[in-house]
Amino acid sequence: MARVKTIGVLTSGGDAPGMNAAIRAVTRAGICNGFTIKGIYRGYDGLINGEIKPFTTENVSGIIMQGGTVLKTARSNEFMTDEGKKKAYDNIKKESIDALVVIGGNGSLTGAKVFAEEYDICCIGLPGTIDNDLYGTDSTIGYDTTMNTIVECVDRIRDTAQSHERIFFVEVMGRDAGFLAQNSAIAAGAEAAIIPEDSTDVDQLSRFMERGIRKSKKSCIVIVSESPKCGALYYADRVKKEFPDYDVRVSILGHLQRGGRPTAHDRILASRTGVGAIDAILQGQRNVMIGIRNNEIIYVPLIEAIRSDKPFDKKLITVLDELSI
Amino acid sequence: MARVKTIGVLTSGGDAPGMNAAIRAVTRAGICNGFTIKGIYRGYDGLINGEIKPFTTENVSGIIMQGGTVLKTARSNEFMTDEGKKKAYDNIKKESIDALVVIGGNGSLTGAKVFAEEYDICCIGLPGTIDNDLYGTDSTIGYDTTMNTIVECVDRIRDTAQSHERIFFVEVMGRDAGFLAQNSAIAAGAEAAIIPEDSTDVDQLSRFMERGIRKSKKSCIVIVSESPKCGALYYADRVKKEFPDYDVRVSILGHLQRGGRPTAHDRILASRTGVGAIDAILQGQRNVMIGIRNNEIIYVPLIEAIRSDKPFDKKLITVLDELSI
Amino acid sequence: MARVKTIGVLTSGGDAPGMNAAIRAVTRAGICNGFTIKGIYRGYDGLINGEIKPFTTENVSGIIMQGGTVLKTARSNEFMTDEGKKKAYDNIKKESIDALVVIGGNGSLTGAKVFAEEYDICCIGLPGTIDNDLYGTDSTIGYDTTMNTIVECVDRIRDTAQSHERIFFVEVMGRDAGFLAQNSAIAAGAEAAIIPEDSTDVDQLSRFMERGIRKSKKSCIVIVSESPKCGALYYADRVKKEFPDYDVRVSILGHLQRGGRPTAHDRILASRTGVGAIDAILQGQRNVMIGIRNNEIIYVPLIEAIRSDKPFDKKLITVLDELSI
Amino acid sequence: MARVKTIGVLTSGGDAPGMNAAIRAVTRAGICNGFTIKGIYRGYDGLINGEIKPFTTENVSGIIMQGGTVLKTARSNEFMTDEGKKKAYDNIKKESIDALVVIGGNGSLTGAKVFAEEYDICCIGLPGTIDNDLYGTDSTIGYDTTMNTIVECVDRIRDTAQSHERIFFVEVMGRDAGFLAQNSAIAAGAEAAIIPEDSTDVDQLSRFMERGIRKSKKSCIVIVSESPKCGALYYADRVKKEFPDYDVRVSILGHLQRGGRPTAHDRILASRTGVGAIDAILQGQRNVMIGIRNNEIIYVPLIEAIRSDKPFDKKLITVLDELSI
Repeated sequence: MARVKTIGVLTSGGDAPGMNAAIRAVTRAGICNGFTIKGIYRGYDGLINGEIKPFTTENVSGIIMQGGTVLKTARSNEFMTDEGKKKAYDNIKKESIDALVVIGGNGSLTGAKVFAEEYDICCIGLPGTIDNDLYGTDSTIGYDTTMNTIVECVDRIRDTAQSHERIFFVEVMGRDAGFLAQNSAIAAGAEAAIIPEDSTDVDQLSRFMERGIRKSKKSCIVIVSESPKCGALYYADRVKKEFPDYDVRVSILGHLQRGGRPTAHDRILASRTGVGAIDAILQGQRNVMIGIRNNEIIYVPLIEAIRSDKPFDKKLITVLDELSI
Repeated sequence: MARVKTIGVLTSGGDAPGMNAAIRAVTRAGICNGFTIKGIYRGYDGLINGEIKPFTTENVSGIIMQGGTVLKTARSNEFMTDEGKKKAYDNIKKESIDALVVIGGNGSLTGAKVFAEEYDICCIGLPGTIDNDLYGTDSTIGYDTTMNTIVECVDRIRDTAQSHERIFFVEVMGRDAGFLAQNSAIAAGAEAAIIPEDSTDVDQLSRFMERGIRKSKKSCIVIVSESPKCGALYYADRVKKEFPDYDVRVSILGHLQRGGRPTAHDRILASRTGVGAIDAILQGQRNVMIGIRNNEIIYVPLIEAIRSDKPFDKKLITVLDELSI
Repeated sequence: MARVKTIGVLTSGGDAPGMNAAIRAVTRAGICNGFTIKGIYRGYDGLINGEIKPFTTENVSGIIMQGGTVLKTARSNEFMTDEGKKKAYDNIKKESIDALVVIGGNGSLTGAKVFAEEYDICCIGLPGTIDNDLYGTDSTIGYDTTMNTIVECVDRIRDTAQSHERIFFVEVMGRDAGFLAQNSAIAAGAEAAIIPEDSTDVDQLSRFMERGIRKSKKSCIVIVSESPKCGALYYADRVKKEFPDYDVRVSILGHLQRGGRPTAHDRILASRTGVGAIDAILQGQRNVMIGIRNNEIIYVPLIEAIRSDKPFDKKLITVLDELSI
Repeated sequence: MARVKTIGVLTSGGDAPGMNAAIRAVTRAGICNGFTIKGIYRGYDGLINGEIKPFTTENVSGIIMQGGTVLKTARSNEFMTDEGKKKAYDNIKKESIDALVVIGGNGSLTGAKVFAEEYDICCIGLPGTIDNDLYGTDSTIGYDTTMNTIVECVDRIRDTAQSHERIFFVEVMGRDAGFLAQNSAIAAGAEAAIIPEDSTDVDQLSRFMERGIRKSKKSCIVIVSESPKCGALYYADRVKKEFPDYDVRVSILGHLQRGGRPTAHDRILASRTGVGAIDAILQGQRNVMIGIRNNEIIYVPLIEAIRSDKPFDKKLITVLDELSI
């Protein structure tokens, strides 16, 4: 394997706070170690369309505290086709890129893995997603910021819930993973969480409501993972019908969960894994994701990182139950 | 007129950040000036149902920085009936309350005005509403906090809008008054605002979109005042149909706009007008709202304060137009 | 007077949050109205040294929410000399600048006034200072943000003060003006403020302490305006000596009071006055500061704006006294 | 060993954000599992003086998001004496307390360990300290909040540093441990950190300065761990003397680093370890600290937790070096 000289960096999938800190770290640590860095715009689409330009420390100046991504991002359908990947590889050759750092979530790293298998290109992944659904890292870049954003919003909503004595169903992101909902419910002191990993059905909701009524709690907050069918609106409607005495409201946090200044935790995670990506390339690693466990940098094979069944700690359900008595 | 000895205080209508600071100020300044203070729970409903208890400095300890209202709040239908007001007055007599401080918005102060006209009770209003729709005061308690909450949310949404190059329609409170939408659009650097005071119709939206297309702006943010018919969803749908190339999203901020720690401005406004309410009672004022203009406390007759047509400064539309070129 | 074609804009003196929003507004509104805009770096020093470059909307993109000033700032001694002003004027001629927008505080606007008197140049001032010590405007750009920063810090300190039952003397900016100290004390629910406008001497401090002891308050917070001699350290030392039973601590907030994302209020003030500066130039105004009173733009002659004795509302002392019983 | 029926809970040492969330979790999970909970005020002093009262869910209502500690805290000298411990034990017997949950840092848990060795009392520790200097847990309750507070402050200071082109030395807590300084420097994008674990002496400072001068960086930020001798003031003085061309300033963050609303991370850590303390008691554990590693609850023997030499990851120094080129 020839020595890597030029590294391309891109962000892909949903934007996550801390992506900019990661781009900055890859760029600065790369330059510090003698590499040429090239920024690829709009994720894999930019790779396909050749939207690539040299990156210096100037390009990443003052971005560590900015949400979003200066490289823009997109979900690329074309990169899923053979033709798309061929075009991408041609541009990689044209730009003399020897290694690719992909900052993104499960789908984006899956793309990187497939690409690395089909073409001779070193792919390094950074866990950039608010969903925290990647294996092998204690958390993903953006997750901590989003958690804090949600908790801040729920703190605000609780003021209103208590003042008016209402029940609020608050819908948060995490269609396939209840990390955000369950943990934000614990952090916000919510009364319950409804998550995809739990089998909470209407009966459970009823039991919860009856418990609440028995205790004559007048205001309460339930965090609900977004869901095409059974989101916050669904549960609010059920409660309105079955317990018409309650004043029920819904708040769907939506897109504001993605943005914002990254927290200290996400900036450090992004900075350390970004430097770790350059270290990994120097060490000849290929097709790994850089994660942090026990405060230590680790290399997780891409195929491991993207396993779809990151286990949900069921004890967190007990924690919330005991705290919301 | 007999000298006032006991003052009742209540919060009414939608909760607003800073109401607690106002309750604290009324209580402390009242006690400092020799009055007995009684807290009335759940707005006018509590007055009707006799949910009244003595308030000491203990009751208002540590609440200056809390959103919502420790006195709870409600919109009372019963207080609009003659029977309701009669019951309320009976409780006032029973509790020996000589003056009533009502913290609330347009509807709540209208209730106070009518009550004061029909019964012999001194009513003092404090402008407690996020809508800023009361005459005679530069701003209302809660408006500044809500403005900052909206701007923070839009700052977050912009990160995503720019990263994905999307158009966002963000819906904010203010069904009948565009203060929040227009001013938050200026503060957030949004590209446009759609407000009830402006005649913005589809044609205007089209012109705006065409201007944007001409400039090949790829991401933009439009703030929309909530509206039963023409809210953010309505405009998003139109744009999706007429300009299918754009990636259009909607964010409805909803209830989280009400809560949260009050800003310095709202705490000072609440503290000064709260002390002002006690001063007004000492001076024998009746049926006035305490406001601040030019940094000075002023007494606004309730009948003035609730005039329904607080003028919207059309120059703000020009300001936003010039800044979003 | 010839028609203005080119406008120079600079920031001067201590940086204030919202200066960037003002630069953006002057630039965008200026361009929108057909003017050429030139950015002058490092305040009057940059005018003297010719650090001037054309400004387009690109230069002010994405800065509305940033603290500090992209034009940099400085306090210029050279501009106080005849030679310095001559050099500055030569550069103005060389760059074909017809009007100068100066964003700064008392000293900076004084410089603008003198310059406008000595040379034939139209100077427009914007009130950019955290000190709020300019006449004719309800508040200055930066003041509201700094107030909120102080109040947030004091909220934090109160947690520790109460947990450990300590007396904290917190020193804030405002050497010559107690606006920040007095108002932040009200907003933070502090027990006392020591400000230059008040004659609070050691006797007053003693009375305050004795009142506290009588009430057996165990924790309290006193906000102190910075002062070369009688700052927070001075008062803490006195209390330690005279009341050795108390656990006394000092926190000097210092430089962190200047920075940070501007609040909604400061962004709107900066945006409106920035647009107002361009309007004023269009109307042929000269040597005025743009302020806001009663939510309306007003033109204040520079000579009025810089009067050194902006009155301090003594009633605020009573407000704090009544609220800290 | 008799079954535990009554649990006492106290906070000790410096207050840390999240202590209230921990008190709440111990109280609620304890009651949920059938225990009687007693709150002990003012740390070990309250145990000695008998400041103990029964705690219900009411006592911990609405405190999850509050900084500081509702149980107050203190550093107890008396508890270090045999007599003090005897008195404490007598009160424990008198109150029928069978197990003690101590929330605090290194010193407080050392006290718990010694007490448990000398008297027959089950002590469970929770890692409550902003210093992050306890073994066996990925982080301590309060550390994440303090990190974010520091980073927010440095973000503000950077605005001023860049606008005025100054060098800032910012002093943060952590006399004996550089976790806060090193990590906040990474998160804030600072140019350097001076920490006790590193041998940074004046020569290193000189090299750093020369590197900066070579690159003609005009503003920079150095984070310094507090130190009786070599704090921020010391380094600022050296630079002023050796590099007189630079405009050097100092900011000592001080006490405001302790307070504030806990972050989501600290609330979850506190909630999970608080529930974990009750679980540990149910399982008959004694004299362990509850920590979290790899997102899993673990029991760390107190004697392990307080080891004084928690290792500092030297790689973090390289990370900062590479990112500040």
